[in-house]
Amino acid sequence: MTDSRWAHSPRIVEAMRRAAELADRVRGSTSPNPPVGCVILDEAGSVVGSGATRPPGGPHAEVVALREAGSSARGGTAVVTLEPCAHVGRTGSCAVALREAGVARVVYAVEDPNPSAAGGAEELANSGVAVADGVLAEEVSAGALRGWLHFVRNGRPHVTWKYAASLDGRSAAVDGTSQWISSPESRAEVHRLRAGCDAVLAGTGTVQADDPRLTVRDESGAPLRRQPLRVVLGDRELPAGARVFDDSAETLRLRGRDPGEALRVLAERGVVEVFLEGGPTLAGAFLRAGLIDRVQAFVAPALLGSGRSALGEAGVVSLSQAWRFYFERVTMCGPDVWISAVPVEG
Amino acid sequence: MTDSRWAHSPRIVEAMRRAAELADRVRGSTSPNPPVGCVILDEAGSVVGSGATRPPGGPHAEVVALREAGSSARGGTAVVTLEPCAHVGRTGSCAVALREAGVARVVYAVEDPNPSAAGGAEELANSGVAVADGVLAEEVSAGALRGWLHFVRNGRPHVTWKYAASLDGRSAAVDGTSQWISSPESRAEVHRLRAGCDAVLAGTGTVQADDPRLTVRDESGAPLRRQPLRVVLGDRELPAGARVFDDSAETLRLRGRDPGEALRVLAERGVVEVFLEGGPTLAGAFLRAGLIDRVQAFVAPALLGSGRSALGEAGVVSLSQAWRFYFERVTMCGPDVWISAVPVEG
Ligand SMILES: NC(=O)c1ccc[n+]([C@@H]2O[C@H](COP(=O)([O-])OP(=O)(O)OC[C@H]3O[C@@H](n4cnc5c(N)ncnc54)[C@H](OP(=O)(O)O)[C@@H]3O)[C@@H](O)[C@H]2O)c1
Ligand SMILES: NC(=O)c1ccc[n+]([C@@H]2O[C@H](COP(=O)([O-])OP(=O)(O)OC[C@H]3O[C@@H](n4cnc5c(N)ncnc54)[C@H](OP(=O)(O)O)[C@@H]3O)[C@@H](O)[C@H]2O)c1
Repeated sequence: MTDSRWAHSPRIVEAMRRAAELADRVRGSTSPNPPVGCVILDEAGSVVGSGATRPPGGPHAEVVALREAGSSARGGTAVVTLEPCAHVGRTGSCAVALREAGVARVVYAVEDPNPSAAGGAEELANSGVAVADGVLAEEVSAGALRGWLHFVRNGRPHVTWKYAASLDGRSAAVDGTSQWISSPESRAEVHRLRAGCDAVLAGTGTVQADDPRLTVRDESGAPLRRQPLRVVLGDRELPAGARVFDDSAETLRLRGRDPGEALRVLAERGVVEVFLEGGPTLAGAFLRAGLIDRVQAFVAPALLGSGRSALGEAGVVSLSQAWRFYFERVTMCGPDVWISAVPVEG
Repeated sequence: MTDSRWAHSPRIVEAMRRAAELADRVRGSTSPNPPVGCVILDEAGSVVGSGATRPPGGPHAEVVALREAGSSARGGTAVVTLEPCAHVGRTGSCAVALREAGVARVVYAVEDPNPSAAGGAEELANSGVAVADGVLAEEVSAGALRGWLHFVRNGRPHVTWKYAASLDGRSAAVDGTSQWISSPESRAEVHRLRAGCDAVLAGTGTVQADDPRLTVRDESGAPLRRQPLRVVLGDRELPAGARVFDDSAETLRLRGRDPGEALRVLAERGVVEVFLEGGPTLAGAFLRAGLIDRVQAFVAPALLGSGRSALGEAGVVSLSQAWRFYFERVTMCGPDVWISAVPVEG
């Protein structure tokens, strides 16, 4: 890349921030394609178009934004969260679309790690478009693109384990009562997190104990139009009348107890982001298999001292074997503490 | 109180903040007297004296600050975290000292709830001094004066339970390994918290398992000059060679298993603030007895899934019986989350 200081101007950084927001909103609706956002600035630097990836089969972010911009794109700048694709898939190459629209400059946050789609930047540069990368790269990689980048690099879905527990790590009391251990604010946040995933996964134990719906609902309790795939893992028979089998969303019943195999099946179905809401047993199994990529813990200001632990057997005998994380983000969520943790590599 | 808007001027608020800091530094060295801070402003509003309560038998904060101010106090303002005392105890009344020094105005944060000492404000007002209260009252009540106010109001020491655990609430692995579950930063913070207390309390279980010293040490590991009383509760015999019985600090060996009785004995010895560092059993016993006034939890970014829970049996069968707290303060401490929780009343 040649000198690209121009790409870090306040206008472009602001446009990238907006593109990242647009991408965030479509998380969960684009898989197996990446959730991307794009903003088009005209020659004078004003926003003339913006958009995000449409569901599979629909246009990519760049095309949505270019359509809005129309002829104002000519001589302008395209600001996009991911390197524009070079491959001609279901939708034609975005590099070609940008070139044909006559944009003079393209700025993207993150390089495409996907060998079949990469090369868009080179293609654009070769045809005389000024290209720069790396603007807000960290935010975008850790944000909307995180799951998809993980999927492309590791060949398996990104798994977020969510749980709610008391400060002392209990997710249910001795008598089994567990519902509403966390606050309404935390429960609303869980619905937002669920909405950004492709599949919600629980063990048969949770389905049997709590009969959860595992759907995404809004503040009034009404289910959203788009629902993640519901997945139930485990061998035991479940009552056909369990809520998870109602018709409010699709449900996949996976037999067996192999977390890796379950993720393979889900990957084949185009699932990029999994939200693991299964109980302590399943969480322990995924952790032992090294298959938890992020923890979202909602810690309630309560102490129980007994009852079910949030996390079951995870193969740790001595403290030196503890599963080590770092706390990526710690904030209040109503009265609860919401802790986001990411595994320490290696 | 008459119009006292003058007492909320930036200079006075700043002086109160300074007085609160001075008070913080002497926490743990003044009991059974309150840790108080005082700043004297001259007639023009400049700081001319400051001080904090000296150990029992020594002068109160006001007297320390007045000595430094000398004749500059005349016509000035005394800013003090607690209502100046009216009683004539070991040190003579602070109200009298302030009047004799000729201060024109006295501002304090918190009213003295102690019937034998209260009345200082009235005494001063009657002799023509302008008196105002309530400046930074909340900060001061929740800060340096918290333990002492609790002691005076409830007739028993204030108990802070400190523990370190993994995110899933485990304080030791299956094989018993537990040391250094939290970071050096958290351990340094624990020493600072210990230093502000009058007594450190552990159960015989912890002494037997870990052989801790329970002393306050600086960053280099050297013990500080002033050490809290070490207290060990429980019936079993302990080896005479246990570190808790070394001569680096005084140790009180309390037989029996009654948390309330233990606090009564400590109150009689002038202990105002207790730092409970005993294991899960003792923490559960204090919680059941309603005798935990604050929790200081150091949560490490690790998952264990098994091993010893941070909190033992606490008498909770159903979620509705959970011990409810609110999170007063949540901050990072190195890689750990440091959570300060206070019981919800009633
Ligand atoms: N607080 C929270 O955030 C939260 C979230 C979810 C659940 N919970 C609570 O968790 C409790 C249910 O706990 P749970 O542990 O039984 O639920 P679970 O983890 O959802 O289900 C456990 C079951 O999953 C199956 N399974 C699949 N793969 C497995 C593997 N690799 N290893 C072991 N088992 C595997 C087994 O069922 P088969 O025997 O059928 O093979 C196992 O019994 C409920 O009380 C619920 O309230 C709490
Ligand atoms: N992570 C941390 O922050 C932390 C802090 C401290 C300890 N620990 C860990 O905790 C473990 C020790 O656990 P622990 O529970 O045995 O320690 P503990 O709570 O310090 O001691 C328990 C003992 O205290 C006595 N006791 C006094 N009053 C009691 C009451 N009301 N009810 C019941 N017992 C009472 C009993 O001893 P008698 O039988 O002698 O009467 C009981 O066995 C160690 O592994 C240590 O590493 C962790």
